[in-house]
Amino acid sequence: MKKVITLSRQFCSGGSTIGRKLSQTLSIPCYDSSLLDKIAEKSGFDSEYIREEGEYSKGILSMILSHGTGELSNQEKLWVIQHNIISKLGTTEDCIIVGRCADYILKEKADCLNIFIHADMDFRKERLLASNADIEPDKCVRFLKKKDKARAAHYNYFTDQGWGDAKNYHLTLDAGKFGIEKCVEIISSLYKKG
Amino acid sequence: MKKVITLSRQFCSGGSTIGRKLSQTLSIPCYDSSLLDKIAEKSGFDSEYIREEGEYSKGILSMILSHGTGELSNQEKLWVIQHNIISKLGTTEDCIIVGRCADYILKEKADCLNIFIHADMDFRKERLLASNADIEPDKCVRFLKKKDKARAAHYNYFTDQGWGDAKNYHLTLDAGKFGIEKCVEIISSLYKKG
Repeated sequence: MKKVITLSRQFCSGGSTIGRKLSQTLSIPCYDSSLLDKIAEKSGFDSEYIREEGEYSKGILSMILSHGTGELSNQEKLWVIQHNIISKLGTTEDCIIVGRCADYILKEKADCLNIFIHADMDFRKERLLASNADIEPDKCVRFLKKKDKARAAHYNYFTDQGWGDAKNYHLTLDAGKFGIEKCVEIISSLYKKG
Repeated sequence: MKKVITLSRQFCSGGSTIGRKLSQTLSIPCYDSSLLDKIAEKSGFDSEYIREEGEYSKGILSMILSHGTGELSNQEKLWVIQHNIISKLGTTEDCIIVGRCADYILKEKADCLNIFIHADMDFRKERLLASNADIEPDKCVRFLKKKDKARAAHYNYFTDQGWGDAKNYHLTLDAGKFGIEKCVEIISSLYKKG
C-alpha cells in the first residue's frame, strides 16, 4: 500500500502551507485543492464551479431536492469524479493530499496518516488578510466561520463522519499554538516512523 | 502562570498511562482520576459516588429535574468541589491533570497544553481486558461505547463544548496508531518547547 498523508484543515489555518513544506521535507508530491481542481476540470466541469462546490456544500439543497428523482445532482457528479481522482492518486504513489475528504476516500485503499489542522481566529484572520486584499478586517471572522460551516457540511454529507472530530484523525494540531514549522516537524517524524 | 498539561481521553485509550509516564519524564506531578477522587472525598462525598458521577453523567436527569427548584443537584455540588480542587492545583504548580474537564476549568488560569487521547476499539479492548478480569470479551465494545457516551455527556453539559472536538485541544493523538511511548515523546517535546 502507498503511504499517504491526508491533510484536512480549517480555512486559513496553515494546512496548505504545511502540505507544501512536508512535500519538500519528505520529497513526495503534494496535491492541494488547486491541483485537484485542475485535474477535475478535465472532466468538463467549469473551474469556478469546482472551486465553489468541490469542498463546500452550498448546494446541499439541490442535492436533497434531487433525491427520489434518481438523478445525480451536479455536486454528486463532482464528488464521483473527485473520488476517482483521489483513489487513483493514493493507490499510485506515496503523496500528500490536502482536503477533499481524502481521509475517507482512501480508507482501506492506502496506508494513511490522517491529519486535521486548526488554529485560533487571530492566527487565521492574519493569514486571510495576507492572502486576500479585498476582504475588510471586520468581515474576517464571519467569513471564516461561514467557510468552516460549508466545509463541515460537505464533509459530513459525503462521509457520514464528523469534520474535525478527533476520532477520525490520527493526529490533530493547533497550528496557531505550535507554529507551521513545528507541525511540519511532528508530521514528518511520524510519517518516517510509520 | 503555571504550565499545565490537561489530558482528556477515551476510556482505556492509554491516557492515564501517558500521564504517568509524562510525570516521570518531565518531573512534574500527575493528578489522575483516583488522586482527584481522594481529594474530593475530603468534602464528604462517598468515594463510590465520586467514582461513578465525577466524570460520567448518569445523573443528568436528576440535574435537569432539580432545575427550577433553586437547589443544586449532588452532581452539580461535586462539580463545584472538583472545579475548586483543579483551579487550586493548576494555579499552584506545574502539573499534569487527567480528565475532569481540566482543560475548560483552567482556561485563562494556567498556561495549558490541552491534549485528547483516543484509540481504535481493538487497542482499547485489549487494555480493558488486561485491567478488568470480570468483563466478558464480547461485552467490551458495548461497555467502552457506554463509557464514551457518559464522559461526553458530562463534558458537554458542564463545559458547553464538544468532547473530542479537535478545536478544543492543542493536540489530539491516536495512541493505537502511534503507541504510548511515541505519544509521551511528542507531548513532552511540545511541553518543553512551550
